[in-house]
Formats: sequence, C-alpha cells, structure tokens
Amino acid sequence: AWKGAPEFKGDNGWSFKPRGRLQLDAGGVDAPSGLDETSSNHLGVSTELRRAYLGFDGTMPGGFGYRFEVDLANSSVAINDMYLTYRVNPKITLALGNQKPNTGLEDQTSDLFTSFMERAAFTGAFGFERRVGLNAQYLGKDVVLQGGVFSDDPNSLNSDYDKSWSVDGRAVYMPKLAGGTLHLGGSVHWRTLNDSITTVTYQSRPFVHTTDLRLLSGGVTGATNELGLGLEAAWIKGRFHASGESYWQKVRRTGFADPTFNGGYAEVGYMLTHDETAYKNGVFERIRPHDGFDKGGLGAVQLNVRYDWLNLNDAGIVGGREQTAGISAIWMPTDYVRFILNYGHIWVKDSPVLVNGTDGTYGVDSMGMRAQFDF
Amino acid sequence: AWKGAPEFKGDNGWSFKPRGRLQLDAGGVDAPSGLDETSSNHLGVSTELRRAYLGFDGTMPGGFGYRFEVDLANSSVAINDMYLTYRVNPKITLALGNQKPNTGLEDQTSDLFTSFMERAAFTGAFGFERRVGLNAQYLGKDVVLQGGVFSDDPNSLNSDYDKSWSVDGRAVYMPKLAGGTLHLGGSVHWRTLNDSITTVTYQSRPFVHTTDLRLLSGGVTGATNELGLGLEAAWIKGRFHASGESYWQKVRRTGFADPTFNGGYAEVGYMLTHDETAYKNGVFERIRPHDGFDKGGLGAVQLNVRYDWLNLNDAGIVGGREQTAGISAIWMPTDYVRFILNYGHIWVKDSPVLVNGTDGTYGVDSMGMRAQFDF
Amino acid sequence: AWKGAPEFKGDNGWSFKPRGRLQLDAGGVDAPSGLDETSSNHLGVSTELRRAYLGFDGTMPGGFGYRFEVDLANSSVAINDMYLTYRVNPKITLALGNQKPNTGLEDQTSDLFTSFMERAAFTGAFGFERRVGLNAQYLGKDVVLQGGVFSDDPNSLNSDYDKSWSVDGRAVYMPKLAGGTLHLGGSVHWRTLNDSITTVTYQSRPFVHTTDLRLLSGGVTGATNELGLGLEAAWIKGRFHASGESYWQKVRRTGFADPTFNGGYAEVGYMLTHDETAYKNGVFERIRPHDGFDKGGLGAVQLNVRYDWLNLNDAGIVGGREQTAGISAIWMPTDYVRFILNYGHIWVKDSPVLVNGTDGTYGVDSMGMRAQFDF
Repeated sequence: AWKGAPEFKGDNGWSFKPRGRLQLDAGGVDAPSGLDETSSNHLGVSTELRRAYLGFDGTMPGGFGYRFEVDLANSSVAINDMYLTYRVNPKITLALGNQKPNTGLEDQTSDLFTSFMERAAFTGAFGFERRVGLNAQYLGKDVVLQGGVFSDDPNSLNSDYDKSWSVDGRAVYMPKLAGGTLHLGGSVHWRTLNDSITTVTYQSRPFVHTTDLRLLSGGVTGATNELGLGLEAAWIKGRFHASGESYWQKVRRTGFADPTFNGGYAEVGYMLTHDETAYKNGVFERIRPHDGFDKGGLGAVQLNVRYDWLNLNDAGIVGGREQTAGISAIWMPTDYVRFILNYGHIWVKDSPVLVNGTDGTYGVDSMGMRAQFDF
Repeated sequence: AWKGAPEFKGDNGWSFKPRGRLQLDAGGVDAPSGLDETSSNHLGVSTELRRAYLGFDGTMPGGFGYRFEVDLANSSVAINDMYLTYRVNPKITLALGNQKPNTGLEDQTSDLFTSFMERAAFTGAFGFERRVGLNAQYLGKDVVLQGGVFSDDPNSLNSDYDKSWSVDGRAVYMPKLAGGTLHLGGSVHWRTLNDSITTVTYQSRPFVHTTDLRLLSGGVTGATNELGLGLEAAWIKGRFHASGESYWQKVRRTGFADPTFNGGYAEVGYMLTHDETAYKNGVFERIRPHDGFDKGGLGAVQLNVRYDWLNLNDAGIVGGREQTAGISAIWMPTDYVRFILNYGHIWVKDSPVLVNGTDGTYGVDSMGMRAQFDF
Repeated sequence: AWKGAPEFKGDNGWSFKPRGRLQLDAGGVDAPSGLDETSSNHLGVSTELRRAYLGFDGTMPGGFGYRFEVDLANSSVAINDMYLTYRVNPKITLALGNQKPNTGLEDQTSDLFTSFMERAAFTGAFGFERRVGLNAQYLGKDVVLQGGVFSDDPNSLNSDYDKSWSVDGRAVYMPKLAGGTLHLGGSVHWRTLNDSITTVTYQSRPFVHTTDLRLLSGGVTGATNELGLGLEAAWIKGRFHASGESYWQKVRRTGFADPTFNGGYAEVGYMLTHDETAYKNGVFERIRPHDGFDKGGLGAVQLNVRYDWLNLNDAGIVGGREQTAGISAIWMPTDYVRFILNYGHIWVKDSPVLVNGTDGTYGVDSMGMRAQFDF
C-alpha cells in the first residue's frame, strides 16, 4: 500500500514504512521602529527549513511496533518520535521511548495537519516537547485515556546531571453530536525539576517560526516543580470545525511566590471546497481532497481564523502579555502536499523587547508561507 | 527496478527509491619546506570520508516529486538536495527547496561523475553551494533553460539575520555535431548580500579535499553584491570528451574598487576500454561499463588530463593566483562502484601562505585516491 | 524475507535492507558520600538513548556490498559501520571504510547481543572504536583470520592534522568440542600516533553508560605508539556458554617508562528457557526464542554472571584499579526485542575520584535496565 511511501507488509504482523517530511517556510515580521539593534535584526523576511523528518515505522510479530524518526532541519540531529510500542490488546497500547507527553488537542495533532503554520503561543511558551518515558493509551469507542511517566528530552539527557521527571495524563471524550463529533478533553502535567534544574524560561515567537525574536519571555528562578492543567473543546462536522484550548502552568519556587501563567486559543475553520475536515481518536488528521491534482482537480482549500492569547505576567514575573488575531488559507493539491499562507496581528503588552528603550506595548504584524510534503 | 537500490513503483505515478553514497578519500600534499607550523600540519597524507549521503527520491500522483538527502560525512548534518518538485508539463519542472543554483557544467554534474576527485578550483572558491529557492527548468530537444530565485544555504539560514538572496540562470545548447554532442552554455549569478553579510571570502584547497590548507584566500570586506558570469563548452563522442569552463565573479563594494576574479579549466578525457562517456541534458552522467565485474570483465577505465586556473588578485585584493596541471585515472568495475587516482601539480603566485615567511611563489604536488559506491 | 525489516533481493546479486536500532537505558550509580560535587552530580538515576542506529545494507552484482549506518543517539551524528566490501571468493572478503578493527570476541560481537548492557571495562578503557581502514577476512570451516590497516575514527579525521595509523590482526580457532563449540582467539594491535597525537587517555565508566563518571582514568603523555595484545576463549553448548578475555595495552613514550595496562573478564551464562545461545564465525549472534510472543509464548530468558577487572596503574601512571562482579538477566520476548536488567558491584582502588578528598579505595553499586529493538 502507498501511504506517501510504500508500506511493506509480511506474514504474522510484519510491516515497514519509510517516513519523511519537509516543511519549507518563508516569513516576515514587522514591528514598530525603535527596537534595539539585536531585536531589529530579527525583523524582515527570512526563510528556513522548518522541519525535515527522516525515519521509519514498523510492526513486528508478537504485538511489538516502533517508530524511529529524527528532525534534521537545523543542520543538526533532533530526536523526534523514537519508541518501541506493545499492543496489550486492541484498545491498550504501551509506548516506551521518546514521545509527546500527553498534552492537548493541537500539540497531539501532527504538525502536518495544524490549522496554522505554528501552534498556539502557549504550546511553545510552556515548553511542550517530546520526552523519554513510558506511556499507556486506552482507546475506546468514544474515549481516549493517556497516562505516562517521563524524564526529559534526549538532548537534555546527554547531561547525566538532569534528574527531572514528570507525570502526564490526558482524557478525551468524543461522542457524536448534532451530526458531527464533539471533542472534550483535559490534561494534567506535573514535573519535578528534582534540584537538577533551577530556572525555567517561558517565551514565545511572534506567530511565525522564521524569526528568533521573542516578544514575550519570562525566566522563573528558584523553580522546583511545574503543575500544568489544560482544557480542550472542539466540534467537527463536514467542512466545518471549531476548537479551543486553555492551559494554566504553575511554577513552584523556593523563597518566592508561585506564578501561574495562562494561554490558549479559539478557532473556527471551513473548507471552501466540498471536502471534509478530518478528526479521529482525539486529534485532527490528514485531509484528503476529493478532487486533487491526481484526479485532474485543484485540490482542497481551508480557511481558518483564530484568536490566541498568552499571559506571562504573574507573582512578580513580568514576561509580557499578548493577544493575536490570525487568519490562514491552506491549499492541499493532493493528500501529501500542502501550502499554507497565514497572517497574524499581535497586540503586545509589558514586552521585555522595548520600543525606544521604554515602551513594551505595541503591535506587530507577522506573515508566513509554507510548502510541505510528507511520506 | 534496481538502480543501485530498489526503486518501488505504484499506480498513478507513485515511486520511491532510497539513496546513499559513500566517497572515501586518501590524499597527500607536498609543499616546499619553510611553511609556518599551522600550514605545515596540513601537509602529508590524510584520509577522510568525503561524502556520506543518505536520503530518498520519490514521485507522487498529480505531478509532484521530491528528493530528501543529507550528507553526514563530517559527523554532522549537511542538508543536501531537499526539495519538492512539480512537473508542469513534460518539458517544464519547478523545484522548491534546497538545490544547486544554476551554475555551470561541472557543478551541475553529480559529484559521482566528475573527471577528478574535486571540481575545478573556481567552483569551491566562488562559493558554489546548494541554496534554498524556487527554480524552473525547461528541457527541450537540444536546449536546457534554468532560472530561479534563491536565499542562502540551510545552515546559514539558521540565523534569521541572513537576508541575502540571489537570481541565478543558465542556458545550454546541445546539438549533435560531427557524430558527437556539442555542449555550449552560459550562466549568470546575481546576489545581493542585503546589508546582512558584509564580507565574502574566496579560497581554494590544493587539488584535493583531504587537506584543510588554502593556498589561495581572499577576503573582500564591504561587499554589497556579487555578479557572476560563466561560460561552458564541451564535445562528447563515444570514448572521448573535451570540456572547459571560465567563470568571472565580480564583487561590488562600498567605498572600495570592485574586484573581478576569474577561474576555469580545460580538460580532455578518453576511455581506455571500449566504453562510452555519458552525457545527457546538460550534464555528464553515469558511465556503465560494457564488461563489468558483474559480467566477468574488469570494468571501464577513463584517463583525463586538465589545466585549471584561478586568479584571486584584483583591485587591491591579493588572494593569490594558481595554475594546476592534473591527470586522473578512473576505474569503474561496475556501474555503481568507482575508484579514482589523480595527481596535480600547482604553480602558486602571491599566496598568503608563505615559504620562510616571505615567498608566496612556489610549487605544490597533490595526490589523491577515492573509493566510491552509491545507490 | 523479513529480518526485522524487509530484505529486498533482485537478480544477479542485488539486495537491500534498511537497518535500525534503538537502545533505551535507565541506570543508577551509588557511591560513598563524600565525593566532590562534580562527581556527585554524576550519581543517581539517569536515562539515556544509548544507541539509535539508522542505515542500510546492500549487495551489488560483481561481488560488491556495503553497509551504511550512523548512530544518532546523542542528538549528533556518529559514523558507525560505513564501508564497501568485495567478496574475493566465498572465503575471503575485503572491506574498505569505517569498521571495527580486529579486536576481541566481545567487541566483535554486535552490541545487540552482548551479555551485559556494556562490554567489559577494558573495551572502553583502551579506546576500542571503529576506524577508517582496509581490512581482509578469511573465513574457513573452523578458522577466522582478520587483518587490516587503519587510520582513525571519522570524527578525528575531520582534523587533517591526525596522521595516526594502526595495524590490527586477529585469529580465531573454533572447533567442535564435547558437543559444543570451542572458541580460542588472539588479537594484536599496533598503532603509531605519528607525532600527531601526544597523549592517550584510558578511562572507564562504572558498569553502566548512563553516567559520565569515570572512576578510573589515566592520561599518558609523551605517547608515541600503542601495542595491544588480546587473548580470547569461550565454550558454547546449547543453553550454556562460558567466555573470557584478557587484554594488555602497552604505551611507548619518549622520555618516560612505558606502562602496560591490563583488563579482562570471565563470564558464564545459561538460558533459563529451552533456548540456545547463538555463536557463529567467531562472535555471538542473535538468540531466537523457541516460544516467543509471536508464538503465544513468553520468550527466552538468559542469566549471566561475570567477573571483570581493569588495572590502569603502571610505570608511574596511577589511573586506578577496579574489579567488578556483575549479574544480568536478559529477556527476549521475540527475536528483535530485548530487555536487560543488570547489576554490578565495583571495588575501586587508587581511583582519581576521591572520597572526602583523600580516599581512592571504595565500593560502588551500579544498576541498569535496557529496552531494545532492531531491524
């Protein structure tokens, strides 16, 4: 079978499929004049390889399976999904290795299928990343339950000084409702830094990833542990979807007050062509155009609008606040090729990046384009 | 079908092929005694993994295709060809991503099929490299036209400060002539550094890549843009080929005179065995021995001689001048395995690498060997 | 055919197989209190990706073959096996490229099939590693002969200053004896640093690799060459195996006495399930459980105990001495999945890592767990 690349199947449960992905971005950021020189250099139009994944998927006799994938986009090796799985029964799967902790709807959705080039600001800000751990998933008819124990990301684990670990869980209820699918979910994250890390830094890029500018940035010293709570809701029906999340991250500190930061988004999207938004098992999936280039058509087009917020001010920490209004157009000429054009306006308050050395309240415009294929 | 590795094909235009390449070099450089210690340490015999490519090629329904390839030889990740293609019609193809700008005959020819272990000195000196961009190619019966817009190489793009971009075009006319194929071509390169890069450095290794010595090196400060012009000619008939290129690179500077540097080569080659040199669509291709090891024979052998020159002296810049006489023997026991032995004598003038602290005019001998396979 | 991943075969000797491997480790080290802070930070429980291999194997018409493999576990590229082979006849094979020099039984055995998570202390201490070279192997009915010339590892070769090279040979005699197989072997290593390297450092981790602590460490300055001698013995019959090695490494120095260091191990292992230990052609091989998960069984279990020693004290160098008693349990639910649990107690003497700033004689406990799959 062809799933972008050929999937080979053998007797007794053998299967094997190469995996690859390229996301090529161009983006531009426009901010008020008067930023310091270092920040100004981050403005303007830049291009980057956003992601360049290479790897393999497979299953083996006896219920085992694996994914082995790295991201080479930054001319370096970033370990991506890299784990061994065991299928206890048709509903329960264990995964051991580097994987996403059980974060929320948008973070669990593949970056191939998000509605905008980048996920919501809080996702990057609160340090969501793949970590090495043991995870269990129960997949019922209209319920997903996930829970696991994690250490840190593989690169951080290159230092044996890092003794941090976390417990992460998520629950999703996804009944049919009014001809569509309702998605309600929540996640909890508790992480001890275990005296081996003492500062956590939360920061965010302005809507696109092509720039290294961080309009919001808050460093929390004396940190001992993190407690995160996420709420998710969505409704998907045919061409239409609406979704939203809110996430609270609290940091325990020794000798200081404990700040709680919050971020989230609300979004609606609509297919302009007679195609369906794809959702399954608690995440958004690949949209398959009815009339793609491969059938002589022009493919599928989706429009999305989003409101996104992030607040890194609390308990004496002033990392800044931002609200973003975003709009995106996604063109999928075939199942495995996608182009995104998106624009966001960001209202910033209390930013550590100052205009004329004094003003942390201003507006920023961000524009981005992406070309993508995967197999 | 087997093309080194298996190529898998499916209905509707699906195809997929793994790609790999290893070039293992040994080389030695002999220079007059009296070089400073740092330079002397670069002399003598060294071995290196010259190239170690890993990747995939594929095509997808709807006219799309891709190449995904990295070079891991330096124990690091160098992004190689990494792009999405779209076939507008049988003659016109677009490519978006990291690829070679439309440079000359030898640079466009795969490093698997060059006549010497390394390309002409000007290729490395003038900074030919893959860059991220959008390129179009028209392939007619005896014409190739290429044109595109490019930013920088992926590693440089990791800094969002880099705002340089270029326009690169090439035209080739390749009619049948006197029982062989004539190749006439030209290329133009215009690159603005866009105030984000201010110095360009042109330098070259002495004929082999196993050493890090640069006998010629010229740094041009205050640079604002580059203008390059290349001319190509070749004639290929059966066992024989002759080829040559000349390339002029001009650097615009603020507050200084604008230097124009030049380099090129002229070469003839002959198959000692009853095999044919391979040329197609504006580049040299894989030579396939009639009597390879796989058929009980000894494979194909090609002899090449070359004159190569590079002049990095102009407008007050003294990067040095060099002329090289080179000879190579290439043994191809099968289609996908190749051994090269080559020797070059280099006459250097005005080199920044001095003998006894004063003399920049001397001779250098370089010897190199390569073992190579690919799939 | 499926060998973890599909192996593709074509006419005339074509074949191709993807290769991958993941080893995920958790380990803990417990030492007396009173270590300096840097050393103390290496203690406690850590996790790491021990190995993450990605690559390809293949054969080509005409007797050629290759392996191309990298280790990405440290979020960087380490070149692994990467070579071209040529089969002169059914008994003699040449290999050119990065490969293991002809070291001893345990080092030649794949890390997939060792009896403990880590090889014997001397293997790491004496700098066994893959190097770029040309090697020949003769494989007779009960004899293996290996000999080759090597430069250095690919990463070191990135510096063209490195002119070191070595000659390495190994001979194994493996007759049937008393219903089992006897293994007797020896290896010789001679390496000149060729005035391009002047210090060699021998050191070892405490039984597990998850820590960066080195209880033993000896730097030998003024080194000019290394002479190594290894002896190997084993007997394998059905469920049982016993094996042992001893290795002497002598360093020639200018202006100092020449130290000779020694290390080795003796081990016995037994399959608790009705399975056989696997040995072939001078190395241990993959154990294939009779009743694996794929057949409704529980897989194979092996118990191993080992005594390991290392002495880095000689001729005025005081790198320390250690003896380790180790025990391991290996569970193989299927041919391609393996879990290891092992524990070691280490008696250290003259360690450069001091307790309370003065005491180099103490005991250390190490515990480790591994999950592994490969294809």
